[in-house]
Amino acid sequence: MEFDVVAVVKALKSVCPAGKEFVGLHEPCFSGNEWAYVKECIDTVWVSSVGKYVDRFEEMIADFTGVKKAVAVVNGTAALHIALMLAGVEKDDEIVMPALTFVATANAVSYCNAVPHFVDSEERTLGIDPLKLKDYLKGATIVSPDGCINKSTGRRIKAVIPMHTFGHPVDLDPLMDICNEYKLEMIEDAAESLGSYYKGVHTGNWGKLSILSFNGNKTITTGGGGAIITNDESLGKLAKHLTTTAKIPHRWDYRHDYVGYNYRLPNINAALGCAQMEQLPGFLKKKRDLAARYNQAFQNIKGIKFFTEPPESKSNYWLNVLLLNEVDLEQRNKLLDKTNNNGIMTRPAWTLLHKLAMFKDCPRMDLSCAENLEMRLINIPSSATL
Amino acid sequence: MEFDVVAVVKALKSVCPAGKEFVGLHEPCFSGNEWAYVKECIDTVWVSSVGKYVDRFEEMIADFTGVKKAVAVVNGTAALHIALMLAGVEKDDEIVMPALTFVATANAVSYCNAVPHFVDSEERTLGIDPLKLKDYLKGATIVSPDGCINKSTGRRIKAVIPMHTFGHPVDLDPLMDICNEYKLEMIEDAAESLGSYYKGVHTGNWGKLSILSFNGNKTITTGGGGAIITNDESLGKLAKHLTTTAKIPHRWDYRHDYVGYNYRLPNINAALGCAQMEQLPGFLKKKRDLAARYNQAFQNIKGIKFFTEPPESKSNYWLNVLLLNEVDLEQRNKLLDKTNNNGIMTRPAWTLLHKLAMFKDCPRMDLSCAENLEMRLINIPSSATL
Repeated sequence: MEFDVVAVVKALKSVCPAGKEFVGLHEPCFSGNEWAYVKECIDTVWVSSVGKYVDRFEEMIADFTGVKKAVAVVNGTAALHIALMLAGVEKDDEIVMPALTFVATANAVSYCNAVPHFVDSEERTLGIDPLKLKDYLKGATIVSPDGCINKSTGRRIKAVIPMHTFGHPVDLDPLMDICNEYKLEMIEDAAESLGSYYKGVHTGNWGKLSILSFNGNKTITTGGGGAIITNDESLGKLAKHLTTTAKIPHRWDYRHDYVGYNYRLPNINAALGCAQMEQLPGFLKKKRDLAARYNQAFQNIKGIKFFTEPPESKSNYWLNVLLLNEVDLEQRNKLLDKTNNNGIMTRPAWTLLHKLAMFKDCPRMDLSCAENLEMRLINIPSSATL
Repeated sequence: MEFDVVAVVKALKSVCPAGKEFVGLHEPCFSGNEWAYVKECIDTVWVSSVGKYVDRFEEMIADFTGVKKAVAVVNGTAALHIALMLAGVEKDDEIVMPALTFVATANAVSYCNAVPHFVDSEERTLGIDPLKLKDYLKGATIVSPDGCINKSTGRRIKAVIPMHTFGHPVDLDPLMDICNEYKLEMIEDAAESLGSYYKGVHTGNWGKLSILSFNGNKTITTGGGGAIITNDESLGKLAKHLTTTAKIPHRWDYRHDYVGYNYRLPNINAALGCAQMEQLPGFLKKKRDLAARYNQAFQNIKGIKFFTEPPESKSNYWLNVLLLNEVDLEQRNKLLDKTNNNGIMTRPAWTLLHKLAMFKDCPRMDLSCAENLEMRLINIPSSATL
């Protein structure tokens, strides 16, 4: 059934504020101590790699998500790179991930000289479909003493990266069962799901290590930034060491014991993060209110629905989602044109990763649900300030 | 001849301000528009990956250094990683670099799955010794149609990374001759040499691509930050593309055409950088004045000398250097202890890179000068504010 573009635009306008020149997809809100903390960094000249805000920010993240250790880094991509390394990912390993994710998930795997292995998503969560994955692994792999081997490539499948799409948690329990059965590590890409809970526990607690992002478009922002979070304290400590050039602590000696990375978050960005974390509960409440208003506004619009959180989860509604009932690229593009021309930013899903030139030869399963979602999904304005 | 620790401490105290609890090696100075620009970022919520300060900062860097294109990134290590990739460095290539450098130079080579090849430094510049390198390459390599081949490893030597140690330019002209003769690319690690000139031209103009750092301890700082600079506009454009996730520009479409990197400098850090660049000429003048005062204060101290710029160069004196006339680790350590205990930060050179566990098996030439310098060199406080 064809949906009514005019009715959709009207519904969006009923929720998005009138009079604003352009309503972006997700804009930051700096209504707390951002000024005070950043100015303190400048006044004390502690802007860089050492400073109290980095420590405080890491503590606030660990407290909020309930993990044992958080390590603040320059962005979510860097966090995922190190998380994969510390989960034992080696050259030529295959890493299971959804085809429907932001390109950084696959890029981080490439940095480890490993290979993305794309799997399908389910419409209920927009994330990895555990049932379909289980069936697939049963046919495509053998579990040997060396781990899970992809029968057709001969490579080891080392890990699974569930990505909590637009803040909606993947169905983690069955996925964890699969990881145990097939000797796979789990690394949660929780870049989009700060403030999202699965069965009452914050996302990021299932992975051996997991990651968050604080990019400018995220629920909270540090300008650019991310974090590695883990309940394994020794891995957390190692993550801190590797992301800070692997220098052995000494008053003056400069000596390093690993090929390290300069991934640390500067203190001035962490200062912004501390102020943002203080406001996070308020942001989450506002974002859920906004989602409820969208849900109401789209109740009676035919051919399209507002996506709501999976029943076992509480989502942060990072980026709100409309799903067309049926694939209709012509109507979809008309809607994208009309909204963007009328000052309301919308966009379709990311191009599925197996369609990008650099990942087109990566192994993959049947991706029919992801391919269908890709054509039906539209993100709409989601700022906490709306 | 043994030097007099007490006399050295006295000379340092005569230059460093009295009454300050602790004089660090290099502290930032925020006496310009830092707060105004950063506040504007916060007030307009443009703190992240897009914003006018990133463009302006890149223009200011290109103008100041005289290159055609500057690309701002998260730090100097990230800049070097991309510069090496774009210079054509491939897996298993060997990259010539001084053993006497900060570990990031070698780490960036490792990120390319390439291999550092350590060469000796000369006391005149503290950087790569071109004469010694030329002799070495003559014996150790053959130049084939595929490039310069290390006879003992069989690997291609692809590039040379001269690092301008503590801001003192390497003798670039003879090094460039060697690069031409041996088919090597040059990538200048100018992390420490913003404001340093070789024969009247800013460092960073010799490399196919070169890099700068704006870490908290550098001549100017963005918290964390760096830049790729190049006179090859097409490489500069590609550097911008690769460091910003390689997204193909489109109003709403998310499509990427390379394995890209999230190395972009956030706008809020670039804002700091713009304010700092405005003050750079003043910082450089103050740092040269400080060096002149040190030079004067150490004129009559026996057994030790203040290091001054090579005759063909004008240095930024990023980190000032004392050189003991002779190796004497006991006296050196006594001096390090005494100064650090008395509120004046000093430190020895970095541990030479071939002595670190992860680089101990890398190819290297005779490093006798670097090994000698490592034991004789001491950095002393160098902030523009002193």
